[in-house]
Amino acid sequence: ESILSALKAAHDAWSGWVCVLLVGVVVGAVASFIDIGTTWMTDLKYGICPDAFWFDREQCCWSSNQTSFSDNCSQWLTWPQLFGASDDSAGGYILAYLFYVLWAVSFGALAAILVRMFAPYASGGGIPEIKTILSGFIIRGFLGKWTLLIKSIGIMLAVAAGLSLGKEGPMVHIAICLGNIFSYLFPKYGRNEAKKREILSAAAAAGVSVAFGAPIGGVLFSLEEVSYYFPMKTLWRSFFCALIAAFIVRTINPYGNEHSVLFYVEYNKPWIFYELIPFTALGILGGLIGTLFIRANVWWSRYRKGSRLGQYPVLEVLAITLINGIVAYPNPYTRMSSTRLIYLLFSQCGVANTDDLCDYNRNITDASSAVEFSETGPGVYRALWMLVLALIFKCVITVFTIGIKVPAGLYIPSLCMGAIMGRIVGIGMEQLAYHDPHSWIFHGECSAGGEDCITPGLYAMVGAAAVLGGITRMTVALVVIMFELTGGVRYIVPLMAAVMASKWVGDAFGKDGIYDAHIVLNGYPFLDNKEEFGHTTLAADVMQPKANKPLTVLTQDTTTLEGVEMLLKETDHNGFPVVVSRESQFLVGFVLRRDLSLAVANAKRTMEGLREDSLVLFTPNIPSPWHGSLPLKLRRILDLAPITVTDHTPMETVIDMFRKLGLRQVLVTHNGRLLGIITKKDVLRHMKQMDSEDPDAANTN
Amino acid sequence: ESILSALKAAHDAWSGWVCVLLVGVVVGAVASFIDIGTTWMTDLKYGICPDAFWFDREQCCWSSNQTSFSDNCSQWLTWPQLFGASDDSAGGYILAYLFYVLWAVSFGALAAILVRMFAPYASGGGIPEIKTILSGFIIRGFLGKWTLLIKSIGIMLAVAAGLSLGKEGPMVHIAICLGNIFSYLFPKYGRNEAKKREILSAAAAAGVSVAFGAPIGGVLFSLEEVSYYFPMKTLWRSFFCALIAAFIVRTINPYGNEHSVLFYVEYNKPWIFYELIPFTALGILGGLIGTLFIRANVWWSRYRKGSRLGQYPVLEVLAITLINGIVAYPNPYTRMSSTRLIYLLFSQCGVANTDDLCDYNRNITDASSAVEFSETGPGVYRALWMLVLALIFKCVITVFTIGIKVPAGLYIPSLCMGAIMGRIVGIGMEQLAYHDPHSWIFHGECSAGGEDCITPGLYAMVGAAAVLGGITRMTVALVVIMFELTGGVRYIVPLMAAVMASKWVGDAFGKDGIYDAHIVLNGYPFLDNKEEFGHTTLAADVMQPKANKPLTVLTQDTTTLEGVEMLLKETDHNGFPVVVSRESQFLVGFVLRRDLSLAVANAKRTMEGLREDSLVLFTPNIPSPWHGSLPLKLRRILDLAPITVTDHTPMETVIDMFRKLGLRQVLVTHNGRLLGIITKKDVLRHMKQMDSEDPDAANTN
Repeated sequence: ESILSALKAAHDAWSGWVCVLLVGVVVGAVASFIDIGTTWMTDLKYGICPDAFWFDREQCCWSSNQTSFSDNCSQWLTWPQLFGASDDSAGGYILAYLFYVLWAVSFGALAAILVRMFAPYASGGGIPEIKTILSGFIIRGFLGKWTLLIKSIGIMLAVAAGLSLGKEGPMVHIAICLGNIFSYLFPKYGRNEAKKREILSAAAAAGVSVAFGAPIGGVLFSLEEVSYYFPMKTLWRSFFCALIAAFIVRTINPYGNEHSVLFYVEYNKPWIFYELIPFTALGILGGLIGTLFIRANVWWSRYRKGSRLGQYPVLEVLAITLINGIVAYPNPYTRMSSTRLIYLLFSQCGVANTDDLCDYNRNITDASSAVEFSETGPGVYRALWMLVLALIFKCVITVFTIGIKVPAGLYIPSLCMGAIMGRIVGIGMEQLAYHDPHSWIFHGECSAGGEDCITPGLYAMVGAAAVLGGITRMTVALVVIMFELTGGVRYIVPLMAAVMASKWVGDAFGKDGIYDAHIVLNGYPFLDNKEEFGHTTLAADVMQPKANKPLTVLTQDTTTLEGVEMLLKETDHNGFPVVVSRESQFLVGFVLRRDLSLAVANAKRTMEGLREDSLVLFTPNIPSPWHGSLPLKLRRILDLAPITVTDHTPMETVIDMFRKLGLRQVLVTHNGRLLGIITKKDVLRHMKQMDSEDPDAANTN
Repeated sequence: ESILSALKAAHDAWSGWVCVLLVGVVVGAVASFIDIGTTWMTDLKYGICPDAFWFDREQCCWSSNQTSFSDNCSQWLTWPQLFGASDDSAGGYILAYLFYVLWAVSFGALAAILVRMFAPYASGGGIPEIKTILSGFIIRGFLGKWTLLIKSIGIMLAVAAGLSLGKEGPMVHIAICLGNIFSYLFPKYGRNEAKKREILSAAAAAGVSVAFGAPIGGVLFSLEEVSYYFPMKTLWRSFFCALIAAFIVRTINPYGNEHSVLFYVEYNKPWIFYELIPFTALGILGGLIGTLFIRANVWWSRYRKGSRLGQYPVLEVLAITLINGIVAYPNPYTRMSSTRLIYLLFSQCGVANTDDLCDYNRNITDASSAVEFSETGPGVYRALWMLVLALIFKCVITVFTIGIKVPAGLYIPSLCMGAIMGRIVGIGMEQLAYHDPHSWIFHGECSAGGEDCITPGLYAMVGAAAVLGGITRMTVALVVIMFELTGGVRYIVPLMAAVMASKWVGDAFGKDGIYDAHIVLNGYPFLDNKEEFGHTTLAADVMQPKANKPLTVLTQDTTTLEGVEMLLKETDHNGFPVVVSRESQFLVGFVLRRDLSLAVANAKRTMEGLREDSLVLFTPNIPSPWHGSLPLKLRRILDLAPITVTDHTPMETVIDMFRKLGLRQVLVTHNGRLLGIITKKDVLRHMKQMDSEDPDAANTN
């Protein structure tokens, strides 16, 4: 028997690990599938592989020897080429433009229609809802298989449509859907909401891990941003899950290079102490852009909700996709996919690089020599103008894009805006150093000449982190993601400086990050565990009922069936306290409305001899000389261990208990007598009220 | 007035940031000082700089041009050289040996005497005590200024003595002492134990950050290993504190190179998929070594406590230092400092490297060409033997060293053991690949020849992580520290695989990591928040008093002063529940023993007319027609919001409340009547009992 119980215990202990293993493997596989599909559809906007239309450009060109990243090979035909026009002719340009916009609009429309028809929850990023769910709220269908399927297909289409959105938020949502579905295979997790959330936290880590190729960043993201309560066990499981998922992606290798990271940077130069000034400035700018973005986006989302616009989601998607396609195409930096643009901005100019951005007046004698520190050529100025236009366009279009009814994450657009901003500042700094290498800032490092002392790509990296920090208000997770993303270990201090500056500036102008802002916008019952509650109100000030109104209770042995049914009909409380008697009000337990109405309905169907005046008993035994009709015994549905506080308990402590113990309500007693009840909604209302009101005035209530 | 309150609020909000800023700066400065002092004293064992004795070898050689890391310059004299003997002669060897052992023993003795005389708490690593303190327990003097001072000096001496210990654990202790001292500058933190712990968590992060040059790893260490409760606010503060501290160290730059990391690895080669097999094997080995180490160390520590050995701590230190010095000197790998050995084992063999470890049969034609993949020479075999001996020696001596009464951390010795083990396995794999490059394992990567396909240094890195993981049972923090430490971003998956394997194997053989084992050994009241409590006992089974004994309570208005004094004398409870009356037992509040005895003593001194039969009142008002002597009103010391649970509450929930709310006791009620009390000690006793007993048998109690 002891062997059996040992085996049972082992199964119990391992089922969590097996579950996250499965989740990790499947998340990795799905992510690879999405990556491959997205690349194929994105390339479809530019041309096709006539020999094998299911190949993207890179695969199409594999057999040829011209495998350079930016150039076309002969196997791959652009749309003008397919129709016999030259790429450089005016007709060819128009044809390419037309195909680009057409494909974009069709992808966008298809995504919007799929979402509208099959899974409305698949729209947007999903992080605010996930935060709310992990804090203990249940949104039915949000983590179901239809959402999973449509979100997976929809995000491929939406990214391929060239919209200003990324697949990182949706990837987290997809991973959590998978976590939810797999948890039902293990009764220990499927049947217990609290245990299930452990699996969901791990799945969230896996989602970020595959989206960025950043397993540790994923775990921290899950910890810092998504999960509400994160026990150490969850940390290890999340770590394992993220590792497996990242490993699967690396094995399938959708990025098509040997690095397991998305935007691997090649440079490894030290940065100069005084560069912390521009880095912090980028952080401040990032915080400002982030705050403005959040305000604009929330304002527009509220307008959408209130106006007739909200009734035509597919039309809205079509309009945005059309405008986006038409405006994006002429500018090469907006025409390319956001990930490619970020990669380009992060990288250093190599000798062989022919992009406008790298058009420096250099004396290239040897292709393998170090890149010289030199003056910009006309190409760089052209590129700068294009980048400024791209930045303005991205900022504006992203505000309108985040919130339309297709799957949409905001990491990539944020990184993109930040990278553009950073690169512009970086080129400025570089030219400053070139023209005045002996000034106090650059003295020592740049005056020697020869090697580049300022790396504009690093500024792009820092800028990207700053804007993403300003929008999401993440700190540690963001720095870890950025440096896993780019492989730039030695740039932790610059990244940290920028992210801290960005967060402080952002917090000064508006307390909430984009996720919290959307939680407030949508009115989800989310009790933020970051804010401190500094007021001195007591539980008695917040509890229901107020002042002279009576408290809705059940008694343990004097309530009739009629009384219970009346109570269920007349009130809409989620549960009822049970007391010894109406006079003494000593608390016995708490019964949930759902359980009570189920039990009553069940009893009426099956129990014979049940009358309207039958007593409903919550006591363990029937009083021994029993008269009258058969009583209904309901002790088994009674929660005998409700959490209570006294009326003198400070609200700070009560809120702490709600957060840490994940409560939905708490009962308030005085000397053992029940006085009232505080629900999560009461707490949220009270916190909001205290934040807006003068604290002293509220105290006198 | 609103401006004033706004200013006050701003000061309130910022004081935390200012405090961690100060802590970060000072931790960075102290760490740099310790680093510099340690290097100087370590070099003193080998020789001296006659022109300026306060220079270490590197500084001494700065002015010369022979600045190679391993060679001596002419300014620096070894002890034999100083006395006119040649380094290579037998006499010179003996002289050098003698000086080495002499210096080591003097440093060790000095450290032990300082600790014994001024600050006994400065011995050891301090992490188990810190964990206990952060879980809510108070150890007076453990975080005081004497501990700080002696620990700072002692760790320099202990490391310089060449003992098998590191300065990482003590650095965390030093940082936390600084955090504690600085928190008193800010009343908001100094006066509130819970708030102060936020500062201490941040300081712990800074401690690891400076010890390894790993700020993110530091934050995760604080989160995973040290801190008990870690709110999000603490995460940001810790991040900031760690950043500042790392930055200060980087600015002062005690490592003397441009990298801010301790063991920077130069190689950047991809690893082969099948290498995961040896990496996992290293993880398993690491887990085994870790478990054995913990058992041996705990056994020896218990023996020390019980035997007369514990009464002569200074003698013990002298003996260990002497043995360590004598045995370590002949083997070059144990003679050098552990950090240098780790650095050597982690690095790849360059062309210019003349160490035995790099004695390969290579055809060196061009100094800048890539290192060829080649057969080992005789030197490698010699080095391997030396390394095996070094591994055995380190394993044995570390067991006896950790626990002696000098400051001592176990990170560096663990890393050292693991690195030796890993390097040995790595060289084995390398030769396997050289002799059979076409086997299924190496096929594809190694069969091309030319470049090295197996990096022995990577195995050393993975092995180091595995042993450290086996000993401390850290996961995420360890991987992050390792990859911040080495700068090897692309080796996350191998590191993760090894650490997970190590942890699983370790957990299978013994649940506790070294810190938890020492907490149990020392009997600290630490309620582990990692373990799950899977039993089904109820609060009623655990509460005191048992069965028929009466509960010690105070009544709100019928207890006399005599009764209170009797209660204080006859019991040693830390607090007493106050009830309405002895008959009804309805709970009013809870009063702490300390407050009660203070209040009584105070009243007896100041209140006239107080008699033995005066009533002690806990009610808000004196009953209006008052007869008899003047009552003592003590409502102000009454905690009106004690945390209560019902007798039917599962112990799982009760333990959860203890952990998350940081409780010391909880009161048990039934229908509003007080039944008993559960203290933290009761919970710990119950958990231990349940773990050792058959769960079914315990249920019937």
